[in-house]
Amino acid sequence: MGSLPVQDRKANVLVIGSGGVGTMAAYALEKGGKAEVTAVLRSNFEAVEESGFDIKSIDHGPDPILGWRPTYIRNTIPNVEKEARCSGGVSQPYDFIVVTTKNLADIPPSVASLIAPAVTPGRTSIALLQNGLNIEQPIIKAFPHSPVISGVPYIGAIENPPGTITHVNHDKLVISPFYNENISRERSENAAKELQQAYGLCTSVTCVYESRVEEARWRKLLYNASYNTTAAILGMDTSRMRASEFIIDDLVRPAMKEIQATAHAVSGVNLSDDMIEAIIRADNYKAFFRPSMLQDMVKGKFIELENILGEPLREAERAGVYTPTLKVIYSLLKGLQFKTKESKGLVKVPASGEGLKYGKKWGE
Amino acid sequence: MGSLPVQDRKANVLVIGSGGVGTMAAYALEKGGKAEVTAVLRSNFEAVEESGFDIKSIDHGPDPILGWRPTYIRNTIPNVEKEARCSGGVSQPYDFIVVTTKNLADIPPSVASLIAPAVTPGRTSIALLQNGLNIEQPIIKAFPHSPVISGVPYIGAIENPPGTITHVNHDKLVISPFYNENISRERSENAAKELQQAYGLCTSVTCVYESRVEEARWRKLLYNASYNTTAAILGMDTSRMRASEFIIDDLVRPAMKEIQATAHAVSGVNLSDDMIEAIIRADNYKAFFRPSMLQDMVKGKFIELENILGEPLREAERAGVYTPTLKVIYSLLKGLQFKTKESKGLVKVPASGEGLKYGKKWGE
Repeated sequence: MGSLPVQDRKANVLVIGSGGVGTMAAYALEKGGKAEVTAVLRSNFEAVEESGFDIKSIDHGPDPILGWRPTYIRNTIPNVEKEARCSGGVSQPYDFIVVTTKNLADIPPSVASLIAPAVTPGRTSIALLQNGLNIEQPIIKAFPHSPVISGVPYIGAIENPPGTITHVNHDKLVISPFYNENISRERSENAAKELQQAYGLCTSVTCVYESRVEEARWRKLLYNASYNTTAAILGMDTSRMRASEFIIDDLVRPAMKEIQATAHAVSGVNLSDDMIEAIIRADNYKAFFRPSMLQDMVKGKFIELENILGEPLREAERAGVYTPTLKVIYSLLKGLQFKTKESKGLVKVPASGEGLKYGKKWGE
Repeated sequence: MGSLPVQDRKANVLVIGSGGVGTMAAYALEKGGKAEVTAVLRSNFEAVEESGFDIKSIDHGPDPILGWRPTYIRNTIPNVEKEARCSGGVSQPYDFIVVTTKNLADIPPSVASLIAPAVTPGRTSIALLQNGLNIEQPIIKAFPHSPVISGVPYIGAIENPPGTITHVNHDKLVISPFYNENISRERSENAAKELQQAYGLCTSVTCVYESRVEEARWRKLLYNASYNTTAAILGMDTSRMRASEFIIDDLVRPAMKEIQATAHAVSGVNLSDDMIEAIIRADNYKAFFRPSMLQDMVKGKFIELENILGEPLREAERAGVYTPTLKVIYSLLKGLQFKTKESKGLVKVPASGEGLKYGKKWGE
């Protein structure tokens, strides 16, 4: 926010990725009354332009919200330099860019290149409402003088069909600063606190500020690196996994214990055994919940592999933590991602083994 | 064969499981001229009764073999006691029962109970042309005075549609005795040698006798415990796995190295690194081969999980060999088998978590 405190005017917020998480974030920010949201829509732009969002929400009910629109919608990332120039310099920079797209480090375009045209360097704060580890690093590198904010969303919200949101779990968002040596701790913290206040003014959601970013990120990884990944490989909801017992005992808990050990060694974060046991049983059994990575897999979409498993594993290796379960799960998911890449034309499998490392017989 | 040497008359052989492997075994045995085969057919009985087998074979070509039938076909396991009694005691006992069904230790009926009605105790030798480890143990327990024979088939033969066999890889069968403390080594060896001779009389196939059963079994596990299992989880042919490189480096080779270490510790069998590298590149790259476990998985069939992974893992644990890759692969496949069991009604997943170990919230 630079020199303009948020209390004096509405914050100018660009929300990128207006699926379930993005739309509910846009809704909470606008409802709080201190933010004016521009939402960048993709596949749902036409539907929302025509008739707005229809939202059935556990937090904002009981009646469905019909035909809701954020202040502005658009179907491209704004180019603040060009668009400001075109309109005579009156375009206002974005105070916050809130990114709620999937974070796919192994699939172009990167988040940094995607948002670049909308960033006013030194002015815009960039909030990543995304899962996983080390997601801030490429953003800090690309925008060294912008505060970068961590948002760890605990929300179950799905868009289907385009423009229709079903929000089934209470919206709890944990906001923290990603510290960055190029800007002061105070500036990082203030940016995060301002976003937390704007979001938290919507009293039907929970938005908390934590000064240490690591704990929230590792805590969420307990679920995402274990249940989410295993469900994606098995094509199985979490209730069936629990009913089997052995999937919990032999895969889910061992994966969580490896995250627990890594979090302690890498970040000094203590995730208790009780927390693990609670997360094992956290989903509503009767809902037969299918985690997001499984849903993406079934739809032939890319999965958030590198931030959820690749980075924790690389951190574990640097810290000398032994993670045999996660390693195998990671390699298998990387294999499944390879298939998705092939189906989308990002990799090509040669018809002949000629020139491939493993293409010829041994000794040939 | 007891007191009747095989050279004096044709051996009376019952082949159970007349898919690709079973039909080609029946064909080789009959073609050798020293065996009279009764084949037990299931889903293909009607087709074969009507018009015989059509076989396109790499070994028995070049022309397709049309309308071939073994000496006898039937669609039930013979009950030698009852059937002999019915026909006035003239039914001849089976010298050999050759079992080529899948070996599904975790799915009833067991091989022992399946073949029991056809076994004449003390007279019939039982040959298991099946993959994996410790498959002989329940057979020896059920028929302590019958020689049990190991057959490790290297053959690519598929039946599709019923009665039509496509045989694409040279038939090489490794036969060995499974030793058994209740009968002499000589008797075990003679039974195995007799079967090997009868099979080997068919000169277009290769049938070798090895007195040590362990090496052939562990050697074949190099492929089956690594490629076969990983392909089944990923839904991926072995050429794509090789094209990716990382699937070989991070999954297939590590799995093979764990089998190598276990084979050495448990059975004193040396499987060389060169053998591993050769098996990694053994499939014809251009064929984009889909291993049998993957084919079963795609068809919703049960997979041979316990003999191919469960038993090697239990042996490794007893011997103190560390097998982190195989363990995770095993648990995932067990999860996939759980889904198949549910789809076939063998397990039921409760709609409510009531009474389940992981059904309730933590602390409730």
